Amino acid sequence: MNKEIPYKIYLEENEMPKEWYNVRADMKTKPAPLLNPGTGKPLSVEELSPIFCEELAKQELDDNTAYIAIPEEIREFYRMYRPAPLVRAYCLEKKLGTPAHIYYKFEGNNTSGSHKLNSAIAQAYYAKKQGLKGVTTETGAGQWGTALSMACSYFGLDCQVYMVKVSYEQKPFRREVMRTYGASVTPSPSMNTNVGRKINEEFPGTTGSLGCAISEAVEAATSQEGYRYVLGSVLSQVLLHQSIIGLETKAALDKYGIKADMIIGCAGGGSNLGGLISPFVGEKLRGEADYRIIAVEPASCPSLTRGKFAYDFCDTGKVCPLAKMYTLGSGFIPSANHAGGLRYHGMSSIVSQLYDDGLIEARSVEQTAVFEAAEMFARVEGILPAPESSHAIRVAIDEALKCKETGEEKNIVFGLTGTGYFDLVAYEKYNNKEMSDYIPTDEDLAKSLAALPVIPQ
Amino acid sequence: MNKEIPYKIYLEENEMPKEWYNVRADMKTKPAPLLNPGTGKPLSVEELSPIFCEELAKQELDDNTAYIAIPEEIREFYRMYRPAPLVRAYCLEKKLGTPAHIYYKFEGNNTSGSHKLNSAIAQAYYAKKQGLKGVTTETGAGQWGTALSMACSYFGLDCQVYMVKVSYEQKPFRREVMRTYGASVTPSPSMNTNVGRKINEEFPGTTGSLGCAISEAVEAATSQEGYRYVLGSVLSQVLLHQSIIGLETKAALDKYGIKADMIIGCAGGGSNLGGLISPFVGEKLRGEADYRIIAVEPASCPSLTRGKFAYDFCDTGKVCPLAKMYTLGSGFIPSANHAGGLRYHGMSSIVSQLYDDGLIEARSVEQTAVFEAAEMFARVEGILPAPESSHAIRVAIDEALKCKETGEEKNIVFGLTGTGYFDLVAYEKYNNKEMSDYIPTDEDLAKSLAALPVIPQ
Repeated sequence: MNKEIPYKIYLEENEMPKEWYNVRADMKTKPAPLLNPGTGKPLSVEELSPIFCEELAKQELDDNTAYIAIPEEIREFYRMYRPAPLVRAYCLEKKLGTPAHIYYKFEGNNTSGSHKLNSAIAQAYYAKKQGLKGVTTETGAGQWGTALSMACSYFGLDCQVYMVKVSYEQKPFRREVMRTYGASVTPSPSMNTNVGRKINEEFPGTTGSLGCAISEAVEAATSQEGYRYVLGSVLSQVLLHQSIIGLETKAALDKYGIKADMIIGCAGGGSNLGGLISPFVGEKLRGEADYRIIAVEPASCPSLTRGKFAYDFCDTGKVCPLAKMYTLGSGFIPSANHAGGLRYHGMSSIVSQLYDDGLIEARSVEQTAVFEAAEMFARVEGILPAPESSHAIRVAIDEALKCKETGEEKNIVFGLTGTGYFDLVAYEKYNNKEMSDYIPTDEDLAKSLAALPVIPQ
Repeated sequence: MNKEIPYKIYLEENEMPKEWYNVRADMKTKPAPLLNPGTGKPLSVEELSPIFCEELAKQELDDNTAYIAIPEEIREFYRMYRPAPLVRAYCLEKKLGTPAHIYYKFEGNNTSGSHKLNSAIAQAYYAKKQGLKGVTTETGAGQWGTALSMACSYFGLDCQVYMVKVSYEQKPFRREVMRTYGASVTPSPSMNTNVGRKINEEFPGTTGSLGCAISEAVEAATSQEGYRYVLGSVLSQVLLHQSIIGLETKAALDKYGIKADMIIGCAGGGSNLGGLISPFVGEKLRGEADYRIIAVEPASCPSLTRGKFAYDFCDTGKVCPLAKMYTLGSGFIPSANHAGGLRYHGMSSIVSQLYDDGLIEARSVEQTAVFEAAEMFARVEGILPAPESSHAIRVAIDEALKCKETGEEKNIVFGLTGTGYFDLVAYEKYNNKEMSDYIPTDEDLAKSLAALPVIPQ
């Protein structure tokens, strides 16, 4: 065991990144622009501004500025829970008997329990700076809603969260964390919005969906003076903010002279993966270094590995712009797996373009294998991982076991996005051996992919 | 804002303490010895050894060795989640507008969610070293059971947890964390033990009590070959292990040349408080420095502020030794407050003796005031605190507000023992304004104190 590398590499506060990195600036093929679904034309800052804060709309469309200064107010908040540690998984290595060196960037040491806070605080800051009263959003499992409620509480902004009704009822604890941070949490579909009332009327007793919650949150934002809508993944602005993960990871590796061979992240909408890999992909794009980069997705929702690279709606409700991405079709309904954060039908345009250009690989893994990895990790590394994060753990373990066979001393780095304290229903199912796997059939996928939108010319 | 002191002071791994500090060695009045309830005589290592591991029995009775080496295997585990940060509460100070400098030692960054892991790993290590098969314990709210299951999983020991039946049913998530770490969790009273069967027969449908769970765990330990019983608080050995909290705190303060004026900790059985204050009290005892030290307890279970300093049973079931401590009587039943870890009728003998000698102060606070402080802290410091820890937050805020009045720039240090992710039922009650306070009447206390045991001569 190399005692020179500590178990946890913490950067000093003055070593923390002062700028986000925008990987689009170095991409030869830029991600395709967001389109107005009515006209088929690329959206302008002006068109996005009634929905998003102006500064965020600018960041969304900025394909050229490589480094964007992180405002001091955001850096001050980051210092409350960052730098996040880069952990050397000595105990996991020992358990596996692998010569590989495994590192993970742990983003779960904050009350939102995940990396989502990195973008939530940025979005709340720009909303505050623009003089807004508040923001609206949707949340499924609740990580994003929790992160946003924390960020809004810090800046004294009103926070209105539309929470998918089934989660609202089944995850009362997440709801209460949000309420403790002063957010109003409304089960969706609600009677607050036109779209909510309409859905309730058409489908009495419905327990809601993320698509419906998005539609309600967007309507709530645009129908109230001084409100805007915010989103926790998929968007390029979110990946920009999340680049803090990768920048810190790289700074920590550099500090100890460690060269990563492989970088692994779970991918739902792509916010964590995109943030983690950005600076590494940047080096690849500039020809300065090479890395294997692996996006891990659930076999039950395999947008990269089995989806189509095409323009699609970002939401099931079809109220959002069209984005070019790997998608399973906005009507795709994944099976009831336990990684709520990875149940999105599409994938960030940036990540999709990088994948299409062959700069990153993708792999899908099954749920029970993921929980096996989660259990092993929890027992030896002392952290109960979120089901989402455990997708990355699974592949990191698989790669470390390959190193055991070949005797290679590879440096494997993966993103541990968060903790599983609010996912114990899933762990209970696993502990009781009641968990099963589900993989959509080719027919399932063909059906939802057949409904991709036709772009107006 | 003094930018020279970072938001989080992390020690380097090589700055972590290599020895625990045993404050008893410096106490002029030693804590009164544990007595055999049958004979009234002090217990020997030999008498304790059928229940406790031998090494732990020795530590329990060692009043003289000031420093005890932390075995390398335990230090290796500590490095997985320690050093814990000493956080400068810049945002809380700003919110309060106080000239005081507030620091908190945060022990919640591990899956057990509290400081309990510091002693759990030590107790599991000595059990393993003695060649035992496993250990038994009881748990109420579940922090201790979780910590012990993590520690046992690490060393490959069997872990049998008797969980108070009402908690087993109401806190299924804690139960599942323990199961994920491989522990067997039995609702108490169970049909596994004589005492459990007897209680179930006498009180059909009972939801159990901590006293009953202790009795079952002790019976299970003594009736199985290769098992011992372990306990997470109250005992002197536990305070010894928990001294790591205070030693790290002191090292972090020293590193930045900060002299604490006041040290505040919540006190249930005394494990966190005793651990946090040990090195500071040591300096007081040796005449090297002076500090105000405040133990904070719930008004609903006020052992220090309203109890009696006398020999009493450590457990409601009266199977454990007699300890001299501040007690409300082993039959005292606190109201259903939400700080499960502070519902103990007595107090560590060490803390009791220090209090009786005037080396520390004590203060009791009411539940709603505690949750007000918790909410404020969560909103500005980004950590959702455990209800137990929030008792210390309450008094730290009160003291910081006094400094605001007087203009004093005091350095206030408090222990933030853990997170409240499994206490959302309590937060929900607070959010819904359904929380109330309960303070026992003098008559209530007189009644339970009248039943103190008579020591055989």
